[in-house]
Amino acid sequence: MRKPLITLTSDFGAADHFTGVMKGVILSLAPQAVLVDITHDIRPFDIADGAFTVAETYPYFPPGTIHVVVVDPGVGSARRPVLIEAARQFFIGPDNGVFSLLLSREKHKVRHITNEKLFHHPVSRTFHGRDIFAPSAAHLAAGVPPSRLGPLVHDPWTVSSFDPIQTGKRFWNGVILKIDRFGNLITNLHIDRFPSVLTRPFELLAGLERLDRLVANFSEAPAGQPVVLVGSSGFLEVAINQASAAAHLKVAPGSPVELTLY
Amino acid sequence: MRKPLITLTSDFGAADHFTGVMKGVILSLAPQAVLVDITHDIRPFDIADGAFTVAETYPYFPPGTIHVVVVDPGVGSARRPVLIEAARQFFIGPDNGVFSLLLSREKHKVRHITNEKLFHHPVSRTFHGRDIFAPSAAHLAAGVPPSRLGPLVHDPWTVSSFDPIQTGKRFWNGVILKIDRFGNLITNLHIDRFPSVLTRPFELLAGLERLDRLVANFSEAPAGQPVVLVGSSGFLEVAINQASAAAHLKVAPGSPVELTLY
Amino acid sequence: MRKPLITLTSDFGAADHFTGVMKGVILSLAPQAVLVDITHDIRPFDIADGAFTVAETYPYFPPGTIHVVVVDPGVGSARRPVLIEAARQFFIGPDNGVFSLLLSREKHKVRHITNEKLFHHPVSRTFHGRDIFAPSAAHLAAGVPPSRLGPLVHDPWTVSSFDPIQTGKRFWNGVILKIDRFGNLITNLHIDRFPSVLTRPFELLAGLERLDRLVANFSEAPAGQPVVLVGSSGFLEVAINQASAAAHLKVAPGSPVELTLY
Repeated sequence: MRKPLITLTSDFGAADHFTGVMKGVILSLAPQAVLVDITHDIRPFDIADGAFTVAETYPYFPPGTIHVVVVDPGVGSARRPVLIEAARQFFIGPDNGVFSLLLSREKHKVRHITNEKLFHHPVSRTFHGRDIFAPSAAHLAAGVPPSRLGPLVHDPWTVSSFDPIQTGKRFWNGVILKIDRFGNLITNLHIDRFPSVLTRPFELLAGLERLDRLVANFSEAPAGQPVVLVGSSGFLEVAINQASAAAHLKVAPGSPVELTLY
Repeated sequence: MRKPLITLTSDFGAADHFTGVMKGVILSLAPQAVLVDITHDIRPFDIADGAFTVAETYPYFPPGTIHVVVVDPGVGSARRPVLIEAARQFFIGPDNGVFSLLLSREKHKVRHITNEKLFHHPVSRTFHGRDIFAPSAAHLAAGVPPSRLGPLVHDPWTVSSFDPIQTGKRFWNGVILKIDRFGNLITNLHIDRFPSVLTRPFELLAGLERLDRLVANFSEAPAGQPVVLVGSSGFLEVAINQASAAAHLKVAPGSPVELTLY
Repeated sequence: MRKPLITLTSDFGAADHFTGVMKGVILSLAPQAVLVDITHDIRPFDIADGAFTVAETYPYFPPGTIHVVVVDPGVGSARRPVLIEAARQFFIGPDNGVFSLLLSREKHKVRHITNEKLFHHPVSRTFHGRDIFAPSAAHLAAGVPPSRLGPLVHDPWTVSSFDPIQTGKRFWNGVILKIDRFGNLITNLHIDRFPSVLTRPFELLAGLERLDRLVANFSEAPAGQPVVLVGSSGFLEVAINQASAAAHLKVAPGSPVELTLY
């Protein structure tokens, strides 16, 4: 039988003890679980980065995988801990928008995690990763049915700014969801929605630069020159071959972009 | 049967080959072991950071876990490699103070690791993580009894500066043990020792700022203002909601703090 | 039976979703595989760093281990994906020189990975880690024989600059292969080739400093003073006890060094 997979995504950074603590909690309750680090370097408190990372990774995991996501600036406040069933997988984390992209794409059931018997006690006010999310994931991995974690709810929190906004017949406002390690700018403009950029002229304004050249891969791009390409996740990206487009264009996660289709 | 868990904590950083080498050594000798990365970003040579991380993580791991800790500025000198049995778990690393907090809390047996038959040969002068600590942990995981690693010793090295010092009837000097990723300052002042801060006035001097406000969690803190809270590990922390207290107060790991109880 | 080990080495950084995606692809196809992160912080596009890391880690892994290496500035161009069998282990990655040190040391068979039936589809132009390397490794781990991945080739790409160059009877030009986390400079001058430095006078020029002192370990080095030692991998290193030789000498990966033997 396949062992239960539990992935971990957080903004805890690599240098602190927090992820180690969560791993210990999980492996104490579910010794058979296989842990997979996705990243612990989500930008601190950046729910967009978390939502993007969740949305980019779950499609590649097998049915039954449990994804624990801790990007939780509101820890200890009224925001709910939730369990989401979607795409034949499980997602556990705070109900603060970090599952927005997932929820907009997939049919889902959402539960408010309320069963304190499954928590780690005492429950701190600042580390629900340890006290609520990790043990809930471990119990699920050990065979506790989802319904035991808490009741269904129908109003999960979503953040709408991941969607491009149409501002004219041929004009769209978008946003930079993420800047990857190479300085590539990943926008929220998906090729499925704007397929014409593959075949017809367009202009993408990012920072102060107007880009109208689409390349198929990094090595087609002339050195030092920003170009547009369809990234591996289907979103339009702005990239410079072997250099940082982010540094060149002086933009940051959340910066606006504008798309004109001709 | 539960598979043997081996955790890895080091100051090797994430970019070098050292941790990969240790993993290879362990999995060659103990293929059934399950490896768990705690962190490899202990501040270089910072024994306090290592000791804090060990102390914060082991309580959450199951009995029998083997923790390998390599923060080892004195590698190759006379400092001893040790195996510690405490809290029904095992700890392997240099005898340089990195186990101080553990030893001050838990009953323990300490062995000087001397059995060269279990080492990786030739033993280098600069990488005992590979040549002594990793193979010792692997042999232990594979069933070699602790007594085979070496003889009991009774004088493990401990660092006393983790304890707050009373300087007056109501005055205590403490220290910042760790600055976490969010810039929160984790002091060595534990709520079990200073429970009155929960109910009575106090003043905590950190950097140039006098703090007298205790909050229950980050989201209770007014934006931009440093506050005191009881961290998830029980130590008093200085934090700013969604900003770095370390940057604001211009302090570093090891900086002094002063507590006055009224 | 030993479970198949798959190691992952890349320049994807710790903050992005790329490695998580590769892990999902592998565990979907080969649930029994055990994943081992070596590092994802190879310097971006730095094939020398990748080649060094591969060469330093594989000797410690057991037979049958599959090493996936993704340092791939030419992704999407004509460079071949390859499977290398060497040292009773497997290596999968781009044929761009990242396996140079391995190939120069070990007898090997090289296959051009061409069997598209084993790929993840659609194959993107920018993320062969997900679409070619990870699934090839997973199929291999699941029992597909190497010959099914593609035909043998006899001209793998190697980079010769890892070898020191003799410029006079007693003079050698070398290079800094890697700067580790502690700021130690790892040169390409291996003790097996220059054993006389252990017993006879020498001079090593690095940055603007002339070094002629060999120490056995870090703690023998006087504080603040750069020294030469034989690193744990056998290469000559320049180090400063508990400080960064790289910062002190103002050198970078790729900087030249000069060795004179007397």
